[in-house]
Amino acid sequence: MSGDILAALAADLADAIAVVRPRSGGAASASIDVEEAVATALLGYVSEPGDGVLGKIVGMLGARPVAAGLLGGRSGAELAERAAAHDPGGLDAPSARELAAGLARWRPRLDEAAFTRSVAQAARVRARLLLTADAAWPDAVADLGAHAPLALWVRGRSAALTEAPGIALVGARAATGYGEHVAIEASAGLVDRGFTVVSGGAYGIDGTAHRSALAAGGTTVAFLAGGVDRFYPAGHETLLGRIAETGAVVSELSCGAAPTRWRFLQRNRLIAAASRATVVLEAGMRSGSLNTAGHAAALGRPLGAVPGPVTSPASAGCHRLLREFDAVCVTDAAQMAELVGDAAVGLADESRDDVVRVDGRAPLPALDGLTSPERRVLDALAARRERTIGELVRSTGLAPGAVMGALGALDATGLAARSGEGWVRRPPD
Amino acid sequence: MSGDILAALAADLADAIAVVRPRSGGAASASIDVEEAVATALLGYVSEPGDGVLGKIVGMLGARPVAAGLLGGRSGAELAERAAAHDPGGLDAPSARELAAGLARWRPRLDEAAFTRSVAQAARVRARLLLTADAAWPDAVADLGAHAPLALWVRGRSAALTEAPGIALVGARAATGYGEHVAIEASAGLVDRGFTVVSGGAYGIDGTAHRSALAAGGTTVAFLAGGVDRFYPAGHETLLGRIAETGAVVSELSCGAAPTRWRFLQRNRLIAAASRATVVLEAGMRSGSLNTAGHAAALGRPLGAVPGPVTSPASAGCHRLLREFDAVCVTDAAQMAELVGDAAVGLADESRDDVVRVDGRAPLPALDGLTSPERRVLDALAARRERTIGELVRSTGLAPGAVMGALGALDATGLAARSGEGWVRRPPD
Repeated sequence: MSGDILAALAADLADAIAVVRPRSGGAASASIDVEEAVATALLGYVSEPGDGVLGKIVGMLGARPVAAGLLGGRSGAELAERAAAHDPGGLDAPSARELAAGLARWRPRLDEAAFTRSVAQAARVRARLLLTADAAWPDAVADLGAHAPLALWVRGRSAALTEAPGIALVGARAATGYGEHVAIEASAGLVDRGFTVVSGGAYGIDGTAHRSALAAGGTTVAFLAGGVDRFYPAGHETLLGRIAETGAVVSELSCGAAPTRWRFLQRNRLIAAASRATVVLEAGMRSGSLNTAGHAAALGRPLGAVPGPVTSPASAGCHRLLREFDAVCVTDAAQMAELVGDAAVGLADESRDDVVRVDGRAPLPALDGLTSPERRVLDALAARRERTIGELVRSTGLAPGAVMGALGALDATGLAARSGEGWVRRPPD
Repeated sequence: MSGDILAALAADLADAIAVVRPRSGGAASASIDVEEAVATALLGYVSEPGDGVLGKIVGMLGARPVAAGLLGGRSGAELAERAAAHDPGGLDAPSARELAAGLARWRPRLDEAAFTRSVAQAARVRARLLLTADAAWPDAVADLGAHAPLALWVRGRSAALTEAPGIALVGARAATGYGEHVAIEASAGLVDRGFTVVSGGAYGIDGTAHRSALAAGGTTVAFLAGGVDRFYPAGHETLLGRIAETGAVVSELSCGAAPTRWRFLQRNRLIAAASRATVVLEAGMRSGSLNTAGHAAALGRPLGAVPGPVTSPASAGCHRLLREFDAVCVTDAAQMAELVGDAAVGLADESRDDVVRVDGRAPLPALDGLTSPERRVLDALAARRERTIGELVRSTGLAPGAVMGALGALDATGLAARSGEGWVRRPPD
């Protein structure tokens, strides 16, 4: 019954919603893709970014059953029962109480007409929904675990998110001439070294970093805290439009959603998670860029800070990062690029058995060159029987984020595939 | 026979050589003190700073037998035999070959007339010889082990070396206006917090730090790379004279000795060793202050660096220290003072059992509150039989530097005393 409501909604939106081509390509029928896309978009529409209960239940059941349950008026207990049936004894499953609280958050926003207008608005600005199954999906955001976005709205080239390693260049809106000089040099220097420059599209340091990347002929990606239909800040409408021409303007918020303080903070977590390293170029003690830096540190991503005169309050935040958060002192683009190089080396040492690294970012398996988590997840998968994330977490002993990261990698290389509401092993081609 | 030559030399110099009052005070006769002082001054005169062979043999036998042996034309084998007799099987004893090479370095400089002129020159400028037994001796230099100075020539107040904790403020001669501003603020701020400002008396950052300390009514100590009879650089003659009025101008070189590159580097080790922490205020990539920073790091002393604009080559050395040497980013005097506070806390956590800290620097024993090395050394001492450093090293399993440091502390608190050529335990008063 509730599945019928979702199917009807999907049928209504089939022409309006545009999804990026999923990476599995092949056999999946277009109608099923649309239903999955609409379900995911709907869940994004009714929730705030980083909703961990939603992330957990969608991670277990997929978006469709959750959206259908929401549309069909299911209770938290019913959803919890379904999760339990799907993954008996799943340690990470949200409780009935958590799901009831979640539904109480999501249901008040369940306005199908408004959602339909939001999707139509996305179509109008040519924004497309990037789903986790897509080849352009930035797998690194899986490190956010249950707080990872379910999907991203993208204006521009989705491939900009993954085709080259990204470095986040962030800083204060209240930039000085010194900070702008640093941003111009850093951004152009990273473009020269083949990096994508990731930032938040704000005035000051962010905008200067984006502009310099464009001027250097590079790719740059802006993450927004509101819907991508309305560029924010308004004064950066032209700049963000130019970014979308060659790079991408991205948000997990639906079109029509206004930026809020919470959404800025959650946007910052995405900037940190989607980048290989984060560098704070100039920041006062209260700059929001310190929040991005905190996310990068919490995610174990390399964190750099550019020092400035100790007499300049505009650099006090950078100095605090150097002093208290063990940020690396970086003074030019070469040192910023080294942040990523060191991290890649560290990764290879810690989790790789035998690998041929073919590009700056994702190592492809060579011979048996899977990471230790990838091997454990692959071993736990079967060819015929689906395994859910919860089952894989239990059988491998890995954290959900690690399982999802490994599945993403195995999916990308064709060794595993989504099947129904779980995952199966695929024979090598 | 050789002892007679030393005694005769001591008699000649008895009026000229001025020593700082030894801390043991009491019974030792003045003539013996003069002989020890003359022997030590002579060995300093013939050697270069940091001569490890000299440091080792004097650590074992004391200055007198070594000076007498040098004056009496003894061979390396004879000195080695004497050391072996004194400390059979001593692991740290220099070999006959090392001692022969040492004598071959020292003997060509053995010019009694020139040495006598040097001592007379010291008397003329009212420089006094500070010996390790003196209360004002900076015990912390014992961390230099065999490379610690045997004695220091001081103009001004010897007590300035120890009466308050010292922080070394160093930097490039080629200072910018920014660096000078930083030095003025840092030095005055540290004086306000009760620190002695230690530096190298050079143009640029060093001189500015000294000047600001004087202007703030504080105590400052300058370590020179040549004799204290001739202030270097010449342009700082007035400044160094003012420093000596309330603080101290110090060198391990004899009067008449000119600064050389080697002596500058060795002077830097003393600045680092005699200070509780070292802060580089502004330094280019080739500044000698980076050498001082390296010594501080090697000695385990806290190291701070003040950042500056990345566009300023004058700050590039500081940024390198932050990036590669794990220096702490410090932006004001309060943070520089914290360097010492943290170090003191770390010391207490690691090596103290139970202690009441009565001042910023040396913790005095409270109840049984000795450090672990102090307790081990005290346990290894006897009331009647002298123990040499070598014996103590073997019986405690501690490094020579640690044994000397512990003996210094035990001596300062009256629990141990030098006796003949070794140390004895003293009953509590």
